[in-house]
Amino acid sequence: MSAKDALVIFTPSGKRGRFALGTPVLTAARQLGVDLDSVCGGRGICSKCQISPSFGEFPKHGVTVARDAVSEINAVEERYDRIRGLKAGRRLGCQATVQGDLVIDVPPESQVHKQVVRKAATARAIIMDPATHLYLVEVSEPDMHTPTGDLERLRAALADQWGITDLGADPALLARLQPALRAGKWQVTLAVHRDHSGGARLIDLWPGFHEGGLYGLAIDLGSTTIAGHLCDLTSGVVVASSGLMNPQIRFGEDLMSRVSYAMMNPGGAAEMTEAVRVALNALAQSIATEAGIDPRAIVELTLVCNPVMHHLALGIDPVELGQAPFALATSGSLSLPAADLDLTAMNPQARAYVLPCIAGHVGADAAAVALSEEPHKSDDLMLVVDVGTNAEILLGNKTRVLACSSPTGPAFEGAQISSGQRAAPGAIERVEIDPATKEPRFKVIGCDLWSDDPDFALQTAATGITGICGSGIIEAVAEMRMAGILDGSGLIGSAEQTGTARSRPEGRTHAYLIHDGSADGGPVITVTQGDIRAIQLAKSALYAGARLLMDEMGVDKVDRVVLAGAFGAHISPKHAMVLGMIPDVPLDRVTSAGNAAGTGARIALCNVAARAEIEEVVRKIVKVETAIEPRFQEHFVAANALPHASDPFPELRKVVTLPELSFNAGGEDRARRRRRKG
Amino acid sequence: MSAKDALVIFTPSGKRGRFALGTPVLTAARQLGVDLDSVCGGRGICSKCQISPSFGEFPKHGVTVARDAVSEINAVEERYDRIRGLKAGRRLGCQATVQGDLVIDVPPESQVHKQVVRKAATARAIIMDPATHLYLVEVSEPDMHTPTGDLERLRAALADQWGITDLGADPALLARLQPALRAGKWQVTLAVHRDHSGGARLIDLWPGFHEGGLYGLAIDLGSTTIAGHLCDLTSGVVVASSGLMNPQIRFGEDLMSRVSYAMMNPGGAAEMTEAVRVALNALAQSIATEAGIDPRAIVELTLVCNPVMHHLALGIDPVELGQAPFALATSGSLSLPAADLDLTAMNPQARAYVLPCIAGHVGADAAAVALSEEPHKSDDLMLVVDVGTNAEILLGNKTRVLACSSPTGPAFEGAQISSGQRAAPGAIERVEIDPATKEPRFKVIGCDLWSDDPDFALQTAATGITGICGSGIIEAVAEMRMAGILDGSGLIGSAEQTGTARSRPEGRTHAYLIHDGSADGGPVITVTQGDIRAIQLAKSALYAGARLLMDEMGVDKVDRVVLAGAFGAHISPKHAMVLGMIPDVPLDRVTSAGNAAGTGARIALCNVAARAEIEEVVRKIVKVETAIEPRFQEHFVAANALPHASDPFPELRKVVTLPELSFNAGGEDRARRRRRKG
Repeated sequence: MSAKDALVIFTPSGKRGRFALGTPVLTAARQLGVDLDSVCGGRGICSKCQISPSFGEFPKHGVTVARDAVSEINAVEERYDRIRGLKAGRRLGCQATVQGDLVIDVPPESQVHKQVVRKAATARAIIMDPATHLYLVEVSEPDMHTPTGDLERLRAALADQWGITDLGADPALLARLQPALRAGKWQVTLAVHRDHSGGARLIDLWPGFHEGGLYGLAIDLGSTTIAGHLCDLTSGVVVASSGLMNPQIRFGEDLMSRVSYAMMNPGGAAEMTEAVRVALNALAQSIATEAGIDPRAIVELTLVCNPVMHHLALGIDPVELGQAPFALATSGSLSLPAADLDLTAMNPQARAYVLPCIAGHVGADAAAVALSEEPHKSDDLMLVVDVGTNAEILLGNKTRVLACSSPTGPAFEGAQISSGQRAAPGAIERVEIDPATKEPRFKVIGCDLWSDDPDFALQTAATGITGICGSGIIEAVAEMRMAGILDGSGLIGSAEQTGTARSRPEGRTHAYLIHDGSADGGPVITVTQGDIRAIQLAKSALYAGARLLMDEMGVDKVDRVVLAGAFGAHISPKHAMVLGMIPDVPLDRVTSAGNAAGTGARIALCNVAARAEIEEVVRKIVKVETAIEPRFQEHFVAANALPHASDPFPELRKVVTLPELSFNAGGEDRARRRRRKG
Repeated sequence: MSAKDALVIFTPSGKRGRFALGTPVLTAARQLGVDLDSVCGGRGICSKCQISPSFGEFPKHGVTVARDAVSEINAVEERYDRIRGLKAGRRLGCQATVQGDLVIDVPPESQVHKQVVRKAATARAIIMDPATHLYLVEVSEPDMHTPTGDLERLRAALADQWGITDLGADPALLARLQPALRAGKWQVTLAVHRDHSGGARLIDLWPGFHEGGLYGLAIDLGSTTIAGHLCDLTSGVVVASSGLMNPQIRFGEDLMSRVSYAMMNPGGAAEMTEAVRVALNALAQSIATEAGIDPRAIVELTLVCNPVMHHLALGIDPVELGQAPFALATSGSLSLPAADLDLTAMNPQARAYVLPCIAGHVGADAAAVALSEEPHKSDDLMLVVDVGTNAEILLGNKTRVLACSSPTGPAFEGAQISSGQRAAPGAIERVEIDPATKEPRFKVIGCDLWSDDPDFALQTAATGITGICGSGIIEAVAEMRMAGILDGSGLIGSAEQTGTARSRPEGRTHAYLIHDGSADGGPVITVTQGDIRAIQLAKSALYAGARLLMDEMGVDKVDRVVLAGAFGAHISPKHAMVLGMIPDVPLDRVTSAGNAAGTGARIALCNVAARAEIEEVVRKIVKVETAIEPRFQEHFVAANALPHASDPFPELRKVVTLPELSFNAGGEDRARRRRRKG
């Protein structure tokens, strides 16, 4: 320990290191890889890097932090505080410098890679049969009279002792073979990869007996987030999971804007490819660090993603996916060296398996959902819906499976909603409206209490109430409908019509007030008429897609509905059905599959037979293209209204008779349109 | 025989069959398995399928061919003739159709499997059948209703149109597929690699019809020099040859000093690997420049080299090759991406084929010599000697082939010789000594005249007379022996003993003056006693290796001798036999094979079946290890003397009766040694 440097410990990550006195806290955080946001790069502009130094004794960390261990508030911080306000105890990480041993807390809102913990619900058992195994082999010593190479004797031993023939080995591994055989006294442990496409391939080797584990990485590469699960390839246990934002977001929030970016900018696709590969390497590195393993122990990965991400990850310009006929460069699965994708933060010989795509709009992620939810093995007719910016929809049973993709847009993810936000602490995720008083209550992510609980304010003080996420807006709209605040066409009634002052005029329409935080400097959260329209468009698209598949199948009802995806895990089936997002089925026949795409990636990682299975299933799935199907438009238009018939919740009818409720009596809007035409 | 079909006979193959009138000649040829080239698959684009119909009476074939037995020249042929020119009598096989009994000649340039006649003395013809071919493929357009990827439709088209299944493609090529298909209006030319190990692999692709050539590089990677031959993979023609010094020389002149360098210096092997790979890239670049082609047109290479160079090129530390039991890391052939060897100055997807090694001392270069000289197909018992720093020796016939390596040292290459130098302009390469006058005359490289020609001085003014190369020193020693200047033990006689003042004292021994250039500031070139001893050691090692194989084979004579290698091409068989380098055979049974290793590399480049052949031959070759064989030492010692018995040149005996000539009467040296011991 020198007088010129000091120990800096970050919480909650626990990352620590010594830094020269005078080092900005942001710089220290970056060097340690602490998740501390910054948009301006430390110029004191963006305020994203807010941190809270802690003072006093920290026996757990073995340090005492003096008041003067951090620099005094400087002019930049004073100015920021004056203009924008800085919470008590907060500092700007780029301005505060290290002056002694420090414990620094990074609050959730300063973390780039905030995580919402989601517990998967379905438990498809995975039978462990990964492509890569360890084999201890005893190799015969060289003999001048039969001068075969060490590799040839190794091959013979592997064939003899394990029945594995025709081992392929890269020159890089060949270079390590002779020293390993001699160090191990002619015993060597091999990691050998054999997948369903045949051929044995040497991945790694160690002298003598090697006990270290082999790991695989199941990656769900989404447009917005990238999630990885690190699996022990022996036990199948997920030893670490990690996620990060897809850095391609800076090229466009949704897939089509990324395709446009590639079309408009020479080299744009390559830029996005590089960005996502850098992120995948960062993910592999961070997940290995989290699990406390050497990244070289990661010998395999599986990748599931939508077609645009699929192409960009493979280095293929996705331009053809942006226009009819939406031709994929390749629809089949790919088994290739991870190094071919520039994935280097793992074993240099690691293999990647990319699941097959179903169609230009229905990707490997949908294939992974099929692998996880197995509609092709079901006796019941299953509707599987994976809701994202696009909804992938599967309908089928053991006889036949249909698939389509429906352009729901980002409303279900909280985007294009006036108070919308991503699912993160502080976001409203559950809403109830009392049909008698029209008063709402709600829950926010990060707190288990309803908002009418006396302790709610205290428990949400840290996160605040910041907006409304996808599941929250769906419940809000459905509850508004059930409470008589919305009519069947989706119009919000006035205070007079609804009998609540929470219906407030907003331009020519009305908005319903969920929460007013303005007294504490927080946001005013309402559901506007525009929000209702956005949700109506999204749910109509989803419903129309499902209906189209049902038409194709020749049925008018399904036996069960599986909601997949992060969103699907949080959505309330009851409210989804009230909204008319999904066809009516008994409530107990609606289940959530959690991150089914990620589960499919894990299954393909842990079991090679599953790879053959999904390739076969994908070949048989009948794809229905919504973009060119006139009936899709018909269903879409027809599904715009909020449903009234065949209501599965008769108890709701006691409160308000939905069919009759129509604030405009079907007239005002149409009358206005007629006037304009005239 | 029906009026609706006709007999078609192809020459020179003689293949014949009946075909419906209207059948294109190309179709008929394909159905009969006639060797008729086509890249475009019969679309009238590539012009590779040119044929010549013959007309008139063909009693041998029993047919009469009428003028109208072939369709008239059509618009496609007229256009081709107008733009590119069609030789008189030539037709495009894909356009000309059968209209009656026909005799069709396939000219050599239209055959895929053309024979390439070699200029070298031995004339093994190479039948063209390279691993990489061009194929024009017409791919079906994407269809939203059956949304397979472009790659999958390409694969289907390749299988359907060319019978090639399971095409593999790297992501880098996948990225180019969609633009190429669209630019080529769903026609694309593929370069597809298929070697004997199976599997079709996409190497390159171009929109529409691509006519550019495909090239392969046959590399003979020697310890001292690296030679490359660039072959047109369609015609087999060597379009350019180039060579450069092996930059590893700075780490050690001979192989064992390079192995020592690797042992003594951490990272030394990697340094040498990098040096040779840089050189191989430079060779590829310079040879492409010389030939005026884009290096990307180089799609394949074959590599032959000794085991140490083999390991260093592959990035394997050669340390095990420096000590018994001389274990190779791998003895088998290798078929791998050239990029795995960091060979980037060529097509990024280029494939490398490394020939198999025979043993730790007998490398892929010896295997290439076997492929070129084919002892395994010989009725005669052949001795094939490839002389370098190590001599690789093959002995065998179609029943059995033996191989060994003998440590001749660098004397045959002009090293360790007092006036020695590499074979380069100015070096003495031929020597004659008049047995009566004991006066020498000689030739130098770069001049066709003997030194006693009046114009010699003028013609060698530019190069000078700089030293004596390997073939020169062998002739000098043999001539000295025949002229009575050397005795049977290898001792140079004094001026008194030999009767010439060119025998000059040098220390305790004598040297023979070949040329004194000191008057013009040039070197004094002598053959010293030390030179004689070095040559004796080298020739004894070579002879002992050959004898060891003969013992193993149970023979005491061979039917013929082939001298391979650059040195072998220049050595005089007569003098080699006088020296006792090789066993006695009639002089006309000694031939030079030139650079047989390089030829073997070319054969493996141009013909995939040859790869399977040499792998099979190498598996069957019996390796004899000289280092551990006591009889090798016995033969070595016994071979030290300059031979006298079974002299194949009785005319020489007229001059000097070799057996009797011994200046020391076997005494002086031994007497001196006894004195020192006493």
